[in-house]
Amino acid sequence: MKNDAENDILFMCKALKFAREAFRRMEVPIGAVIVKDDNIISHGYNLKERKRIATKHAEIIAIERACKALGNWRLTGTTLYVNVEPCIMCVGAILQARIQRVVFGCNDDKFGALGSLYDMHDDKRLNHNFTLKAGVMRQESIKLLQDFFAAIRKGRLDCNRP
Amino acid sequence: MKNDAENDILFMCKALKFAREAFRRMEVPIGAVIVKDDNIISHGYNLKERKRIATKHAEIIAIERACKALGNWRLTGTTLYVNVEPCIMCVGAILQARIQRVVFGCNDDKFGALGSLYDMHDDKRLNHNFTLKAGVMRQESIKLLQDFFAAIRKGRLDCNRP
Repeated sequence: MKNDAENDILFMCKALKFAREAFRRMEVPIGAVIVKDDNIISHGYNLKERKRIATKHAEIIAIERACKALGNWRLTGTTLYVNVEPCIMCVGAILQARIQRVVFGCNDDKFGALGSLYDMHDDKRLNHNFTLKAGVMRQESIKLLQDFFAAIRKGRLDCNRP
Repeated sequence: MKNDAENDILFMCKALKFAREAFRRMEVPIGAVIVKDDNIISHGYNLKERKRIATKHAEIIAIERACKALGNWRLTGTTLYVNVEPCIMCVGAILQARIQRVVFGCNDDKFGALGSLYDMHDDKRLNHNFTLKAGVMRQESIKLLQDFFAAIRKGRLDCNRP
């Protein structure tokens, strides 16, 4: 078994792979995987524009699939990896699902709820808290977003977010 | 056309009707409707236990159905009615969907993000704000929850939330 730091890089690479799937579909490139006992139990990537549904963020899709995979709304003992800091909605879903740990790549100054706009992982009034690791594969995560928005500016993509 | 206050009561009664559907299914009784131009375009009720999926709150279900009904993730010009103050996840979804107005019945001291734990409708850092009306059919909303939890205590229902 790899150590935690190696595992975090490995699984973030998987999340970035799914983020590139979103990019190919002209969606803001955000991907997520959920891991339990060193195994990926679900994944998701942003499909908000394609599906025309406001809730179809990578994390929500991955959480719903993980619940189905485990047959339980409680995702106890799981870690969610996502290349960009989750928004309020997605952090709310992480709390609802009782996810134990969240690892993300780069911050989202406009919408992030785990350090940027809010610190929701550490609100002791809530009935659930989770541990947080930020900045895993940060540079790769930033570059992927920069490449995406550069492509938009060049007119190759017609997309906006959120 | 009825005036706004009459409309609010009328549509909250509909949300409460769907909340009772949740109750009948042994779910915490929360129901929601989304209204545009005085017409209900979608509804939802809590199905978290039944579906075993953490995201299946009344508001999320109603928002996803409204996006499908309008063919657009932007629910511009809509009002969401729900009998209980929405949680962080649901307020995040309301923000993502750009809902214009939210009306709720009773507060949720433990999980509510529109006055109880947070005041997210009024966070000027966000790219969207919405107007809020709290306390419509408050007593009926409180009584429905009390009836539900009394039934649980009597052992008639096996359920917990969130």
